Amino acid sequence: MNLLLLQSSQINGNQATVSGRQLAHLNSVHQADPGSSVRVGEINGLMGTGIVQSINSEFAVLDIELDTPPPPPLPLTLILAMPRPKMLRRTLQSISSLGVKQIYLINSARVEKSFWQTPFLSDEALHNELVLGLEQARDTVMPIVYQRKLFKPFVEDELSDIISDSQAFVAHPSGTEHCPIDIKTPSTLVIGPEGGFVPYEIEKLAQVGVMAVTIGPRILRVETAVPTLISRLFPG
Amino acid sequence: MNLLLLQSSQINGNQATVSGRQLAHLNSVHQADPGSSVRVGEINGLMGTGIVQSINSEFAVLDIELDTPPPPPLPLTLILAMPRPKMLRRTLQSISSLGVKQIYLINSARVEKSFWQTPFLSDEALHNELVLGLEQARDTVMPIVYQRKLFKPFVEDELSDIISDSQAFVAHPSGTEHCPIDIKTPSTLVIGPEGGFVPYEIEKLAQVGVMAVTIGPRILRVETAVPTLISRLFPG
Repeated sequence: MNLLLLQSSQINGNQATVSGRQLAHLNSVHQADPGSSVRVGEINGLMGTGIVQSINSEFAVLDIELDTPPPPPLPLTLILAMPRPKMLRRTLQSISSLGVKQIYLINSARVEKSFWQTPFLSDEALHNELVLGLEQARDTVMPIVYQRKLFKPFVEDELSDIISDSQAFVAHPSGTEHCPIDIKTPSTLVIGPEGGFVPYEIEKLAQVGVMAVTIGPRILRVETAVPTLISRLFPG
Repeated sequence: MNLLLLQSSQINGNQATVSGRQLAHLNSVHQADPGSSVRVGEINGLMGTGIVQSINSEFAVLDIELDTPPPPPLPLTLILAMPRPKMLRRTLQSISSLGVKQIYLINSARVEKSFWQTPFLSDEALHNELVLGLEQARDTVMPIVYQRKLFKPFVEDELSDIISDSQAFVAHPSGTEHCPIDIKTPSTLVIGPEGGFVPYEIEKLAQVGVMAVTIGPRILRVETAVPTLISRLFPG
């Protein structure tokens, strides 16, 4: 936790109240005492400094000053075939830490139906993972996660609008073009499931303008592929 | 497992015997029968095709033909402050899948002493994680992992030799230069612990020619930072 990310409900004027996970972190990792200084931010707001006024095992009160804008978001929409639940959690944290703000989780022939049953897809669970990513990276802007459990209607009815005004790529071994480097323009990146999209899905994506691109002969797990592809498009 | 990676002890002429984890995978994921074809490779050797001759709950026998070289390795030496054990395992898999062949795990002021006690540092455990990464990526060349539990002697006595003939970078917020993109030359990349290297360590690294570079304001966990930095240096 490199930033204590506060919800507006925790803030009252220039003071913030901290409990639960964040308090435990202040106590155990920061070993915060009255007077300790920690980096704080408000969800979807500014970042700054918090000075601990009081702290005990129930809650802490901080005097906060918020004056710094968060880092710029990536101009990237990420469309991800729904990963295996245990991989979903850390992949969402990683995506959130990298500065992606629009995330679509979509179905695909090789996504197991059971993946959609995971409790990690609840609004609260998603929020918690995304907050962990923002606290890691020192960012305040919450990503938005959309869930689309039907591949064909998503591609036919929504995807054209999503990728308008952007370049759109799907990482796939059949890609004949190399994935571009340092693209600098708004982009949409589609990443398939374990085992990859089936040919029909690649065709459907191509029909609406999503180009299949390769990053070489190595097949990467989604948690490695996501930062690899994002860093390639936007090395920053 | 996108490649069944065989040890030489499993191979006898044009036949290979498979048991244990790999057999379980053949049975459960590939649902292999006699006649089924799977991609195979020999550790530090060629890749090719295996045809299942017989398979039961104890072992499988495959006819193999090995004729394809593995993908080229990255010209990169990775020096990583010893991560938290549970992160070590998946980071090693990820590093192995990305094609890195020289890995140093080093100590640092912010590495907790207990990290070095983990059973995941045994030769067998390291081998297993690295094999999983190679099987994921379809590669055969085993990375070598060196463990260096003293920072100062490592930097003073070994690092100069390691980085000779390469450009050497340490990712650190104090870096004034941006980490280069698509470098195309042999490189050494140093990645710090959670919380970063302390200033003394950055100074020691600078003294032997390791340049501090930044990748922007976001602080990434090691499992995200590794593919982000590698992809930036070697987008391929």
